[in-house]
Amino acid sequence: MKAFYGDLRVGVLGGGQLGRMLIQEAINYNVSISVLDPDPEAPCKNLCDKFVTDSLTDYEAVYNFGKKTDLLTIEIEKVNVEALQKLEEEGVLVYPQPRIIRLIQDKGLQKEFFKQHGIPTAPFQLIGSKEILKGASLSYPFVQKLRRDGYDGRGVYKVRSAADIAQAFDAPSIIEEWVDFEKEIAVIVARNENGDIKAFPCVEMEFNPDANLVEFLISPSTLPLETQKRAEFLAIEIANSLKITGLLAVEMFLTKDNRVLVNELAPRPHNSGHHTIEGNYVSQFEQHLRAIFNLPLGDIRPITNAVMINLLGEKGYDGPALYEGLEEAMKLDGVYVHLYGKKFTKPFRKMGHVTIIDDVREKAIEKARLVQEIVKVKA
Amino acid sequence: MKAFYGDLRVGVLGGGQLGRMLIQEAINYNVSISVLDPDPEAPCKNLCDKFVTDSLTDYEAVYNFGKKTDLLTIEIEKVNVEALQKLEEEGVLVYPQPRIIRLIQDKGLQKEFFKQHGIPTAPFQLIGSKEILKGASLSYPFVQKLRRDGYDGRGVYKVRSAADIAQAFDAPSIIEEWVDFEKEIAVIVARNENGDIKAFPCVEMEFNPDANLVEFLISPSTLPLETQKRAEFLAIEIANSLKITGLLAVEMFLTKDNRVLVNELAPRPHNSGHHTIEGNYVSQFEQHLRAIFNLPLGDIRPITNAVMINLLGEKGYDGPALYEGLEEAMKLDGVYVHLYGKKFTKPFRKMGHVTIIDDVREKAIEKARLVQEIVKVKA
Repeated sequence: MKAFYGDLRVGVLGGGQLGRMLIQEAINYNVSISVLDPDPEAPCKNLCDKFVTDSLTDYEAVYNFGKKTDLLTIEIEKVNVEALQKLEEEGVLVYPQPRIIRLIQDKGLQKEFFKQHGIPTAPFQLIGSKEILKGASLSYPFVQKLRRDGYDGRGVYKVRSAADIAQAFDAPSIIEEWVDFEKEIAVIVARNENGDIKAFPCVEMEFNPDANLVEFLISPSTLPLETQKRAEFLAIEIANSLKITGLLAVEMFLTKDNRVLVNELAPRPHNSGHHTIEGNYVSQFEQHLRAIFNLPLGDIRPITNAVMINLLGEKGYDGPALYEGLEEAMKLDGVYVHLYGKKFTKPFRKMGHVTIIDDVREKAIEKARLVQEIVKVKA
Repeated sequence: MKAFYGDLRVGVLGGGQLGRMLIQEAINYNVSISVLDPDPEAPCKNLCDKFVTDSLTDYEAVYNFGKKTDLLTIEIEKVNVEALQKLEEEGVLVYPQPRIIRLIQDKGLQKEFFKQHGIPTAPFQLIGSKEILKGASLSYPFVQKLRRDGYDGRGVYKVRSAADIAQAFDAPSIIEEWVDFEKEIAVIVARNENGDIKAFPCVEMEFNPDANLVEFLISPSTLPLETQKRAEFLAIEIANSLKITGLLAVEMFLTKDNRVLVNELAPRPHNSGHHTIEGNYVSQFEQHLRAIFNLPLGDIRPITNAVMINLLGEKGYDGPALYEGLEEAMKLDGVYVHLYGKKFTKPFRKMGHVTIIDDVREKAIEKARLVQEIVKVKA
């Protein structure tokens, strides 16, 4: 491995906020970073050795970009996997491996993988078109999820009754039993090429029901240790079954009857791990780098209680972003602001996040609520 | 203050490792960063919105660079102050203020400032040339320091006896009583435009006697609380007297008879604060940004024990850098590597640093010694 030498050419597919925070850590390792993104104004554009504006889903674009790198990684799954497989055959290191990206791109394949490996997940059925919904064996309500290209809550539809079917997606989907969950939880696990594996402690999430986005995350969890260990065990099981190199974010439901069901996977740094920057001894971004560079993994322990809130564009505002209340919020101790370098806001766009830490869990939560009230992204 | 808006144009004079680590934090604030450095291969070159290769000491170069910014800061004192004063008059925010940079550029003026403000410092005398050394009133040994442009141990000469005078600097200097110190200690203090002020806890340093560079730093200090409080008090006194906006690093001697003497100042992030990245709740780099953006200052408390070692180029090696033993060192828990993106090593060049943290102070020191043995920068 040529890291530390300045001549390891690392390519990142996607130049958004995840790439940006990855670069913040990669700077410590002297690697040369290239980024591919279709948006010429992507958050990473001025933070890398080379920024290429081109499609992430076009074979030629990804192949030509990757051919000039030694190691490719992703910050988004929606990339051309055929090009990645070709590059892998030709000796470029691609982490996560293309076969894993292919699997995770398709929620149907993901669910079948869970089934095959005895990973608990909500009962589901694969469907090819809307027609089939009428005869589906699931009872109402259930959830329809597009197999491909769902992202940040898009591509998910709740079918409450037969009357909702008219509005359903008419595309290859999974339909899934409605999980009446107590909580959404997540575990991020890292595995390097040597097979060393470490899971960050389990975190609890609160979603914004309007936007269907994580907007409030609490670390570490205070669920019964048994539940946390179960979640961490499942995440490690999946990472080991996949033999992934890199990070794997595992989103799970804790049901009201105390079962842990795996919901979905992301083979990269993830929104549910942003708190690790200040809240844990190693951040998810540094851990991803350690994993893909085949370095010893870092210390996943929490430093203290951390609450992360996403800064989403306010409803009703569209245009050059203005950030209200950040200075006010920073008057509180333990408030850390991360903006993503996006010029334009629109409703629910992820514009940044704030992490709030405190040795007393309730205080961290209270401060986070206050920050959420104070800080608004408008235009 | 226009921070958070993406349209605050921040200029950094100097594109070395301090600028690089400052940018790593500035990314969180959406500001646009320009960097000026004479070296086209400076560590910051690919990490900013605009990189300008030109002199830091030339009036026109600094003026023209600064004219296109809203706020200028420095990562090195050796810059053209006249240009900065002109820019300040014309409405550019310059932090630290040019008058402070001017004072600190000249070790003679620094010493006189200490004297005028009752800040304890080693007795000294200003001299214009070597000639005067012969009649100096100090007893041997004493130290000669060039008033200007000393850096990283350069420009300092120990005069042991009359025989050494022949080798002394023949330039405006200070000569200073030899301080038989017990320890070198340092405090970094931040002050924002509002006048809010916070000092990081006192740290203890060990120098590499060959290179005359800090190479081993321990945080927090375990000196008697009274001594630490004295050091922190002096640092705050100086920052308040200067009315500095930004960081001020205050290097001090603790004498064998338990006095704290101020040695010298740096009005910027400093080598003695690198441990704060992992070791404290706020890093010196983020704190500097908060100070110059007039934001509330961050939480200076230590998270745990941290030991910082500089990675210096090994003696006898000159050329493209190779880093030995980093992977081995990272097998230890709590080891964080920061490389500075310099292609070429030479003896004693600062190529990076490693911070080692541990809840047990002795373990942190022991691991640091091990890292120091294992890691070598060669060519």
